[in-house]
Amino acid sequence: MRIVFTIDEICAIVAPQRTTGAAVDSIRGIASLAQAQPGDLSFLGNPKYKAQVPSSRATVVVLPLSYDGRPQPGQLYLHVDNPSLALARLCARLEQSLWPRPVPGVHPSAVISPGAQIASTAHIGPLCVVEEGAVVGEGTILHASVFVGRNARIGGQCWLMPKVVVATECVIGQRVRLHSGVVIGSDGFGYEFIGGRHEKVPQVGIVVVEDDVEIGANSTIDRARFGRTIIGEGTKIDNLVQIGHNTIIGKHCILVSQVGISGSTTLEDYVVLGGQVGVGGHITIGKGVKAGGQAGISTDLAPGSYVNGTPALPYILERRIGVLKQRLPELFRRVEALEKQREKSFPSS
Amino acid sequence: MRIVFTIDEICAIVAPQRTTGAAVDSIRGIASLAQAQPGDLSFLGNPKYKAQVPSSRATVVVLPLSYDGRPQPGQLYLHVDNPSLALARLCARLEQSLWPRPVPGVHPSAVISPGAQIASTAHIGPLCVVEEGAVVGEGTILHASVFVGRNARIGGQCWLMPKVVVATECVIGQRVRLHSGVVIGSDGFGYEFIGGRHEKVPQVGIVVVEDDVEIGANSTIDRARFGRTIIGEGTKIDNLVQIGHNTIIGKHCILVSQVGISGSTTLEDYVVLGGQVGVGGHITIGKGVKAGGQAGISTDLAPGSYVNGTPALPYILERRIGVLKQRLPELFRRVEALEKQREKSFPSS
Amino acid sequence: MRIVFTIDEICAIVAPQRTTGAAVDSIRGIASLAQAQPGDLSFLGNPKYKAQVPSSRATVVVLPLSYDGRPQPGQLYLHVDNPSLALARLCARLEQSLWPRPVPGVHPSAVISPGAQIASTAHIGPLCVVEEGAVVGEGTILHASVFVGRNARIGGQCWLMPKVVVATECVIGQRVRLHSGVVIGSDGFGYEFIGGRHEKVPQVGIVVVEDDVEIGANSTIDRARFGRTIIGEGTKIDNLVQIGHNTIIGKHCILVSQVGISGSTTLEDYVVLGGQVGVGGHITIGKGVKAGGQAGISTDLAPGSYVNGTPALPYILERRIGVLKQRLPELFRRVEALEKQREKSFPSS
Repeated sequence: MRIVFTIDEICAIVAPQRTTGAAVDSIRGIASLAQAQPGDLSFLGNPKYKAQVPSSRATVVVLPLSYDGRPQPGQLYLHVDNPSLALARLCARLEQSLWPRPVPGVHPSAVISPGAQIASTAHIGPLCVVEEGAVVGEGTILHASVFVGRNARIGGQCWLMPKVVVATECVIGQRVRLHSGVVIGSDGFGYEFIGGRHEKVPQVGIVVVEDDVEIGANSTIDRARFGRTIIGEGTKIDNLVQIGHNTIIGKHCILVSQVGISGSTTLEDYVVLGGQVGVGGHITIGKGVKAGGQAGISTDLAPGSYVNGTPALPYILERRIGVLKQRLPELFRRVEALEKQREKSFPSS
Repeated sequence: MRIVFTIDEICAIVAPQRTTGAAVDSIRGIASLAQAQPGDLSFLGNPKYKAQVPSSRATVVVLPLSYDGRPQPGQLYLHVDNPSLALARLCARLEQSLWPRPVPGVHPSAVISPGAQIASTAHIGPLCVVEEGAVVGEGTILHASVFVGRNARIGGQCWLMPKVVVATECVIGQRVRLHSGVVIGSDGFGYEFIGGRHEKVPQVGIVVVEDDVEIGANSTIDRARFGRTIIGEGTKIDNLVQIGHNTIIGKHCILVSQVGISGSTTLEDYVVLGGQVGVGGHITIGKGVKAGGQAGISTDLAPGSYVNGTPALPYILERRIGVLKQRLPELFRRVEALEKQREKSFPSS
Repeated sequence: MRIVFTIDEICAIVAPQRTTGAAVDSIRGIASLAQAQPGDLSFLGNPKYKAQVPSSRATVVVLPLSYDGRPQPGQLYLHVDNPSLALARLCARLEQSLWPRPVPGVHPSAVISPGAQIASTAHIGPLCVVEEGAVVGEGTILHASVFVGRNARIGGQCWLMPKVVVATECVIGQRVRLHSGVVIGSDGFGYEFIGGRHEKVPQVGIVVVEDDVEIGANSTIDRARFGRTIIGEGTKIDNLVQIGHNTIIGKHCILVSQVGISGSTTLEDYVVLGGQVGVGGHITIGKGVKAGGQAGISTDLAPGSYVNGTPALPYILERRIGVLKQRLPELFRRVEALEKQREKSFPSS
């Protein structure tokens, strides 16, 4: 990274209550204690890594007040109340350095329909396409090569990364982040089987992405057959996730990467699905349900359930079965022994 | 949506045999009975939702002839023979409104090789790239930012959504729809392990996508090592599906989202694979095979099989095992009880 | 394909030690023995297909020296030491024909920041975006519509296919191939749950892709929270794979399509993961581990392990359990029989 913080800048952000040692280098990166190289800043956020501090090659180490070891020559320890919070402040500053806010305006290479409405504080980067009737809100960034279809509406303070597609008529709320390759509003998967062929059912609904949603790279959200596919406020979706048509995702859900949710299903608020979970169509997943990675869910789940496996079972039961399954060879032998014993005792039976 | 239908336009499309009530509003959307708002049209397609009709807030409701309830004030009931068919007609009309047919011609921002052949009735949208020797057929739409590689051929009446890639030499039939982010003709995954390194096996075949295929957003179809990877006529593929090199998908198959099919496998016609199904390489899946979501298939399957689970088993057996698996804790207890009983009866054994 | 090789050109490449028969056609494709049409070249690389040689319609067939059948009229047999090697040579030649090396230089439609450094022998295709401070190495090809973010560095002799995204600050080594739709450096998936909302943890690290890596279409590699996500030298990644933040993939690994690896996990060198495998976070997968398709791995694995299933178990045990699982209905019947027997023998117990 080309990031450079001087020691003075670091101290101004971290505001240490106490320092030990001294460093002259600038800081050019952040790394874990074990991976840090000279020129890096590191930190002790979790006491279990305490033993890694003395041997860390980091130039600057952010430590709790209670840490009492001594730095190596040319190394600076910064002692603070909460190293994790100090790190978060540094990362927020780094984020601004990595992605400096682009100036408002439309890049000359972008193709903007005369009928589109672009807020004066929005930034439309190179090679974007914004079609007729589309609206882009205040402070929103379309980074580069973003496509916004006819009559689609993007709220304010959003950030659409390179190659995002928001299709015709879809609606994006405020402060939404869409990562590269996200497709909002692809057609739902619906056909009628007529005369040996699958005839397409037109998909004329839309997708509504509510405020403060974030969606990971190359994820796809299908438009409704009619009506709306909804991603609820504050929900966070990882990479390569698929959401089917007319599905409603509640508020503040977490969908880890490669999750797939079929059509017309409802997730209530605060649902958490692990990676590669599959959810069938036309079912309801209650508030706060948690599902472990690769679970397969094809029936309604009551609020607060914690499930695992395919088909998904209560977590404790599924774990128990997982252990007993490994003892199946033993169980078969035990039954065989019982049968032999019976044979010996009751030869005629 | 900015869609507006007057009541008169609706009636012209739906052709009701009988009406009840009256509405003055225009219709601006279609929604299910429960979700409809004033200004929406709804319908009763499935008798099980009949109880939702009286409380629906839809301005217009399409109902079977037999429905005999009374509309609310300002609400219009349209009685028809087949509400689902009436809805399909409306949706088809809406589809035309959402995506009005673009005028033929090439957008000035598109980069078209002088050696490409673009049919005069084709539409090449903004920021597309069409390389040397490529052919785009009559009436075909490349919506925006579509890439068509050297010597690739796209048939007539196709629709390629924003950000589709059709790589070098690949062949797309007639009336094919490719959704955003689809990649046709990425390299197959083939290496030889030589001297501790994976040496690339060149992938010089192509992909052939036959007529009337539809492929969902961000799906990937690998080009053959040599020869052809084939997607058969009328097959419909959902989002985020992966098809390996030299694989042959039959006609009129259905591949639900996140299916993965390894290389050199054959799916015969009318195969249906549920979401997240995985299929191994070099096998044959017989005509009309159905596999439940997340199934893992690594051996040939006879035509007409219906399988589930990993490894995939006949559906009925897999369901039975699924039930018995949950009774494993009980079975272990029962065997233990038998052993204790035996111990008591035959202490010396 | 528009590929045309004359018989003389074929012979120059293949260098047969002996020929049988004669052909006048040019060769326009390569196909398997069974699928070949007149005008195709085919080959016998695996003795098990020997019976297909006499009926193959290929115009030219490459055969081992030991093959002693006779060609059909108009068909030419070329006998060589190693037909597979001869084919590899032909394919490498075909590869050059399919993708002729583009001339160095920057296409006028590309948007290149004045602060970017493009090597003089690099090729920047149409509609690419290269931001400020980015570096593109000697002989590297950005095919079309590729995005390279601020300060990102692409090494020499790389090939980035249409629609690839390399985000801010990420580093790509030498001779790396990235297929269409790959996203390098999307944000890692990290939030803190505060006051009922998921607050974003800034993701300010980078991705490092080492030399000779190949990554398949639409795969996504997340940038580190801080520090680096690393894809080790010579590793090959298939399509639609997800790699989480701060994960370290060793050298010469093979990740088949739709694999998902959570954050902060380490794969040592030479790991092979089958399609759709899921790997949890914060674990270590030892050198040379192999996992079958759809396995779910959530604990450390010792070097050399071969696992299968979810949760992943040693391959042999998992296969054994798979067989015994199918005998569960029988086992339940056998236990019931024992219980009935006991009941009969000890009615009072």
